Amino acid sequence: MSTLTSREIQLKSRPEQLPSAENFELVEVPVPDLQAGEILVKNLFMSVDPYMRGRMRDVKSYADAWQLGEVMNGGAVGKVIASQSPDFSVGDYVCTGLGWREYSVSTIKGGYPQEIRKMDPALGPLSAFIGTLGMPGMTAYTGLKKIGEPKVGETLFVSAASGAVGAIVCQIGKILGCRVVGSAGSDEKVAWLKEEAGVDEAINYKTADDLQTAVAKACPDGIDVYFENVGGEHLVTALNLMNKFGRIILCGMISMYNEPVPGPQNLGIAIGQHLRLQGFIVTTYWEMYPQFLRDMGQWIGEGKIKWKETVVEGLENAPEAFIGLFRGENFGKMVVKLSDE
Amino acid sequence: MSTLTSREIQLKSRPEQLPSAENFELVEVPVPDLQAGEILVKNLFMSVDPYMRGRMRDVKSYADAWQLGEVMNGGAVGKVIASQSPDFSVGDYVCTGLGWREYSVSTIKGGYPQEIRKMDPALGPLSAFIGTLGMPGMTAYTGLKKIGEPKVGETLFVSAASGAVGAIVCQIGKILGCRVVGSAGSDEKVAWLKEEAGVDEAINYKTADDLQTAVAKACPDGIDVYFENVGGEHLVTALNLMNKFGRIILCGMISMYNEPVPGPQNLGIAIGQHLRLQGFIVTTYWEMYPQFLRDMGQWIGEGKIKWKETVVEGLENAPEAFIGLFRGENFGKMVVKLSDE
Repeated sequence: MSTLTSREIQLKSRPEQLPSAENFELVEVPVPDLQAGEILVKNLFMSVDPYMRGRMRDVKSYADAWQLGEVMNGGAVGKVIASQSPDFSVGDYVCTGLGWREYSVSTIKGGYPQEIRKMDPALGPLSAFIGTLGMPGMTAYTGLKKIGEPKVGETLFVSAASGAVGAIVCQIGKILGCRVVGSAGSDEKVAWLKEEAGVDEAINYKTADDLQTAVAKACPDGIDVYFENVGGEHLVTALNLMNKFGRIILCGMISMYNEPVPGPQNLGIAIGQHLRLQGFIVTTYWEMYPQFLRDMGQWIGEGKIKWKETVVEGLENAPEAFIGLFRGENFGKMVVKLSDE
Repeated sequence: MSTLTSREIQLKSRPEQLPSAENFELVEVPVPDLQAGEILVKNLFMSVDPYMRGRMRDVKSYADAWQLGEVMNGGAVGKVIASQSPDFSVGDYVCTGLGWREYSVSTIKGGYPQEIRKMDPALGPLSAFIGTLGMPGMTAYTGLKKIGEPKVGETLFVSAASGAVGAIVCQIGKILGCRVVGSAGSDEKVAWLKEEAGVDEAINYKTADDLQTAVAKACPDGIDVYFENVGGEHLVTALNLMNKFGRIILCGMISMYNEPVPGPQNLGIAIGQHLRLQGFIVTTYWEMYPQFLRDMGQWIGEGKIKWKETVVEGLENAPEAFIGLFRGENFGKMVVKLSDE
């Protein structure tokens, strides 16, 4: 047994509504010795994502529920510091599904995604591999392309538009020739969307007198594709404004993760308007990852894709970073920095 | 001017919730003389359909709103009694969109669908051309095939399963090799579904202790395709039971036509389950009508498709027949018989 120890966050209890600090516990555990084929990774960044709220519930979902008294997991970026595997060398940068801890050994179960991928730091900053170049970026790319099928000249409406997924959706939408309208929760986010991300219109949904009126004004030709990250009033509004044969990409509904929110009473609009509402999980389209990396790497190199990050320092602050997602405290991707290299 | 007069039903006022007799007015109008190219049709049967509730509203929809003080319209089966057209002969049977009246002249505007089609009485009884061989049958056929894309062995759940559309969906589902489960509102309808329509399981949603429990028991392998005619609790139930990559055909939501009903609070299930909810209007797929007639004619001939009709006699009773749709007073297709031949 090595003497190396790793701090990790375990799930202590399941929240009823908004999670709080007492649902989490920071513990220190020994790191097992490496066996043949294994690697030891020092995590540099870990991801907190809205979808993780679902893993706090004790129900079957697409990602396994976290178990009480066990370490949580999720996306992480790390560096190989010991290797008994012919496929990885000390110094390699890797993405794993073994976040919420300082060190991981490659056979630890429960990673999501389970695959360990080497990454090319030339494509972008390390933290981007759990953001724009990672799962959130892939979510934007595959959801918009595979489900949304936007055409040149169509209007794309994006909620949570400055977020880790939304900001990338907006900019891919522009690259694909759409008129793009985003909704976000502060004037600062709205300004960034217009000035940096290059959307055509952006709305502060918290200060708009009436969301429906504001979105209708920003989308004079209606909405052809709606990228849904929020649920609730945003979905009702989009349904009211969708054009015939419009598509609604059901990616997330963050407004509904912690408390019940009424469903859309106007869903019947989908009948006469021939709408398609379609849900997806990014891992289903993971075979597109190489194509995504090529496209995204090129777009980043050309300066066509920008993003914001909110960086929280230290594993002990990961629960607060996670909880902050539901208060909109992140501007862009929320990442937790665990260590310098 | 001929001396022929025609009684017709005009829209007198718009209902707030459930329509009532006072929203309709029976008036007698002169029938114009035929011009070159026109035909005069004596209506034998006219259709009342749930979708017509939307036409009582003064809002833009896929079918034009009925105007106050004007005759309503809708599907009708009639016989040509005078013709100035080279395309139609006296004695031809035709389907038109010019119901809610005793006589129609082919240039009267506002028909839905606008096309006038000759029909082949060898395919089935005349009234079936506004039912199983008409718009409701086409709705079942195109919705299930184009949107539902059922595969052999999949479970198909159908609400309003003994209705004009639902009963045909159930039986096409069986022909296509599905396990079919239907929901209906009386024991008599449930018995007919099992004994005549040949579904695998049927549920009386009015007497079931808990709809969710009853549907779950009838669908032990979950639901792959849900044909939605009802909305409300049925949609919530189906969402909870849908299998991954399931399809929900949004055809109608009769429970929500007359009064607001909460939207599905569990729509977020569509994300993790990769569900596709897709609305459609049958006229969009009208190019499939010849193929539909061939298939349906054959299936009827082989005894594979059965249906029930509730026949109301007399134009003056058409409003009550229509209103009865929302009380579930129809068993199968509701038709109004206007005249013997």
